[in-house]
Amino acid sequence: MAKKIRKYEEFLEKGREDFLKKIEEGYERFQKTKTYEFPTWQYGEPKGKLFKVEVEDAPKFGQNSFIELDSGRTAFISIDMQTDFCGDGGYVDVMGYDLSLTKAPIGPIKNVLDAVRGTDIKVIHTREGHERDLSDAPYNKVLRSKIIGHGVGIGEVPKDGMGRLLTKGEPNWDIIEELYPVEGEMVIDKAGKGAFGQSNMHIVLKNLGVTHLVITGITTDVCVHTIMREANDYGYWCIVLKDGVGATDQGNHEAALKSIKMQGGVFGNVSDSEKFIKAVKDAGLK
Amino acid sequence: MAKKIRKYEEFLEKGREDFLKKIEEGYERFQKTKTYEFPTWQYGEPKGKLFKVEVEDAPKFGQNSFIELDSGRTAFISIDMQTDFCGDGGYVDVMGYDLSLTKAPIGPIKNVLDAVRGTDIKVIHTREGHERDLSDAPYNKVLRSKIIGHGVGIGEVPKDGMGRLLTKGEPNWDIIEELYPVEGEMVIDKAGKGAFGQSNMHIVLKNLGVTHLVITGITTDVCVHTIMREANDYGYWCIVLKDGVGATDQGNHEAALKSIKMQGGVFGNVSDSEKFIKAVKDAGLK
Amino acid sequence: MAKKIRKYEEFLEKGREDFLKKIEEGYERFQKTKTYEFPTWQYGEPKGKLFKVEVEDAPKFGQNSFIELDSGRTAFISIDMQTDFCGDGGYVDVMGYDLSLTKAPIGPIKNVLDAVRGTDIKVIHTREGHERDLSDAPYNKVLRSKIIGHGVGIGEVPKDGMGRLLTKGEPNWDIIEELYPVEGEMVIDKAGKGAFGQSNMHIVLKNLGVTHLVITGITTDVCVHTIMREANDYGYWCIVLKDGVGATDQGNHEAALKSIKMQGGVFGNVSDSEKFIKAVKDAGLK
Amino acid sequence: MAKKIRKYEEFLEKGREDFLKKIEEGYERFQKTKTYEFPTWQYGEPKGKLFKVEVEDAPKFGQNSFIELDSGRTAFISIDMQTDFCGDGGYVDVMGYDLSLTKAPIGPIKNVLDAVRGTDIKVIHTREGHERDLSDAPYNKVLRSKIIGHGVGIGEVPKDGMGRLLTKGEPNWDIIEELYPVEGEMVIDKAGKGAFGQSNMHIVLKNLGVTHLVITGITTDVCVHTIMREANDYGYWCIVLKDGVGATDQGNHEAALKSIKMQGGVFGNVSDSEKFIKAVKDAGLK
Repeated sequence: MAKKIRKYEEFLEKGREDFLKKIEEGYERFQKTKTYEFPTWQYGEPKGKLFKVEVEDAPKFGQNSFIELDSGRTAFISIDMQTDFCGDGGYVDVMGYDLSLTKAPIGPIKNVLDAVRGTDIKVIHTREGHERDLSDAPYNKVLRSKIIGHGVGIGEVPKDGMGRLLTKGEPNWDIIEELYPVEGEMVIDKAGKGAFGQSNMHIVLKNLGVTHLVITGITTDVCVHTIMREANDYGYWCIVLKDGVGATDQGNHEAALKSIKMQGGVFGNVSDSEKFIKAVKDAGLK
Repeated sequence: MAKKIRKYEEFLEKGREDFLKKIEEGYERFQKTKTYEFPTWQYGEPKGKLFKVEVEDAPKFGQNSFIELDSGRTAFISIDMQTDFCGDGGYVDVMGYDLSLTKAPIGPIKNVLDAVRGTDIKVIHTREGHERDLSDAPYNKVLRSKIIGHGVGIGEVPKDGMGRLLTKGEPNWDIIEELYPVEGEMVIDKAGKGAFGQSNMHIVLKNLGVTHLVITGITTDVCVHTIMREANDYGYWCIVLKDGVGATDQGNHEAALKSIKMQGGVFGNVSDSEKFIKAVKDAGLK
Repeated sequence: MAKKIRKYEEFLEKGREDFLKKIEEGYERFQKTKTYEFPTWQYGEPKGKLFKVEVEDAPKFGQNSFIELDSGRTAFISIDMQTDFCGDGGYVDVMGYDLSLTKAPIGPIKNVLDAVRGTDIKVIHTREGHERDLSDAPYNKVLRSKIIGHGVGIGEVPKDGMGRLLTKGEPNWDIIEELYPVEGEMVIDKAGKGAFGQSNMHIVLKNLGVTHLVITGITTDVCVHTIMREANDYGYWCIVLKDGVGATDQGNHEAALKSIKMQGGVFGNVSDSEKFIKAVKDAGLK
Repeated sequence: MAKKIRKYEEFLEKGREDFLKKIEEGYERFQKTKTYEFPTWQYGEPKGKLFKVEVEDAPKFGQNSFIELDSGRTAFISIDMQTDFCGDGGYVDVMGYDLSLTKAPIGPIKNVLDAVRGTDIKVIHTREGHERDLSDAPYNKVLRSKIIGHGVGIGEVPKDGMGRLLTKGEPNWDIIEELYPVEGEMVIDKAGKGAFGQSNMHIVLKNLGVTHLVITGITTDVCVHTIMREANDYGYWCIVLKDGVGATDQGNHEAALKSIKMQGGVFGNVSDSEKFIKAVKDAGLK
């Protein structure tokens, strides 16, 4: 009874050829237009308007190109713009970092929000924080925070602080006034730096039918990068706006941006708030 | 310094109202057409052709209605039609179950494959199996299999068997000849009953841009149901073809189908191979 | 430069042999003791006390056996005992199901809570519910609920109802008074029937260091089963207490329990509140 | 009928207090021993031997401290040491990067493998690669690779290359000879930069019962960092060996290491192969 295992090859070649034909088409279009065009063969006809955002150092450093987005399938994400990460008496402040770096993106994010509000681009805010009993705060995370925080870590109230650090329901945990969500915008709460395996992120994005994410927030090398990496692995197109992100260390901020650009855009692309706002305006999305 | 935490309510109401308006529209359309129409506001215009599949006992037992699908965003899934689950000398055979129940769906699945091959409906096969060192086989799973298998469990070769049970690369692990993938079709390997948190399922479905899953395979109450539950939780529309699924126990098979129909379709809907093939043909997808 | 791909076989055999040796030991112990012993080789020495819970129809129907647990690595889970699923004016009530079936487990769960409170067994409650803007409520889920609910679905307030169905913050969404968490107990909020890919479940369980889950709640065939399936796929040992679970349909309830017992315990095991309480008491955990 | 929603606060305070007591103990021990001690209260008594690895710039830059590990709950991970990332004619070579940077960790990883083989520390290798039909290769990933690769991307064979880039089964996809797995070691295949939401990683780690990961491989800022971030979010303790990792750009490599050290160890800790090997030897694990 010698049943032979069929080789994958027999049926996989055709699938690969078909897919590589789509890639070839995208590649040829890119050569002509310097644009990563919105793949209608994959996602369907645009739900909103197509528009192009200029991105830098793509495909190579020193070269600019464009990402084409469908406004109806684009989400703008503002990551963790909470007092804990950029306000007085919050988590980052307690650890002794220079707040000016994490405050820097507030203005650019505000400008982008002004531009996209009223369009069909969706707006999502995220917050990092833990249940009030710290049930979803890993022991090592909390311990490290206490050691670096001179005895005051996650779940505790620093001297002259607003409330328990990184803890749901505390004023320092909430989004800062300047960037507070307005009606119609969404908030995703997450316990970690990333979001996909531990929050409702998968469901929210699927429910919205989005394909492209325009990303801002803090910090560049931690939460922004982790969410971008996860989203990119699942196939979402990600564009980080470089002046809309900030880190606790300027070198890490810059390296995190550079890292995105490696390998022709290993985690997505980098643009800035002006370029993105220009694209939104030029397309007449409002 | 009395910063007030803003209430969710302020900005969440608008989002809810907008969403409930879409629900209201879908609801009113359903009253008129008895059809869960393809939501173009969410997914965009059809990539392929819209077609309607009749489903049973929806919204209530005794009532039939229709699911509208976009052929270009539909995947047909054949779950675990491996010798291990429906062939002589495989895992289910070793445990002593009646193979006629898990063999029953072979004909209907073959008929559906004949109908969808050549259309723009994607075809995905899945296989349950473990790495050859059993690194991804939970200890309790393997132990239980050995106890119920009279001393021969996962990773071992039964007397007169073809190869190691549920082990990648073994002939019994592969898909049966009658339903073997043809070119252009995909195979997803998974270590568990479900797939989403442990295989490339998320990536494959996202890459295809599919929104609706037509599901067959074995066994109804185990792998079929687990994958359906996961997909449903993420928002995929799922339709199980009742004669295209089978279980090791007829009562469990029937109860699993009934369970899907509770609460107006708590995990999706139930149809059969004839209804689905009719829908494909009536729409002239080929 | 002809580099040869080495065959998996070369190094995978040893891993399999080592693992199957552990399986063989567990198997032989089971033959002698009819007990699925706590695998200290895998998890380490007990953190609390070892105790044995009798389970039914395992490995075969008509046979009873025992699962050995470490009290310090056991979590007792009460799933979705919310007004929405078992109270007047909640979601299940609006759909017209007989509440007596989903209320039935209240007593047994209360008894188990009385028994485990004060021991080192952890207690986790879950709640199903959606953000107040329904951002994490899949369109098809909400639409189906409205159709089956005679025009009132998730996110809406039924006539004479308490609040918006399955919506966070509403009284009907919260856990019923009789089973409300007490201090030291955890609550996991989730948007779907399952939990692992969409909530902080992975993090919470890992933080607790638990290996065995004793599961109760509603409904047997929906949320209880989905969470059990996910946990089982990741390798957690699951025991459902049959009188501590209930469904909207008695047939589905019974079939769901039977389904667990197939294949020697395909999703875990089934016991009841008396057997579990007896085990806790006999071990002197308090 | 005025049922009141009970405040979280009532029962969550106790849980937080209990947890913060454990944190306080860990903190006080750290003050005395400069060691993040293995938390037996969480994981139980050691399965193997406890040993201490010196880590740098923790909790602050310029300070060294120690992580205490249980050899029986430690996995050593070698990430993506495939020809595609460090060999001639592989993916990274085709993109034109300097291979000396990604080859640099080969020696240190070999040394660590020599040290841990024969101990009870588990060894896991990972490989990034796609199904032969590219079904799990996101369109944007493949398109970008073709553009940066001068017309030859993932799934295609470069001129004078060994095989299809990043494609399962090709010689360039496999692990390099120098670091090839030996018997008893595991391999995890993954489609993305990360692993947890898309491969059997969750299952493998849970099956092994590991709590601490010692991480090496390539590239520092891409796959190494992504897996570390995911693992850290779930609560695993991660230590990267800095000479056992490498990137396509030296600046990114260094910044990626620095980024780990921010916030007292935001993604874990950094050590090197010599310190780790010393720790293994001093503890007499072999």
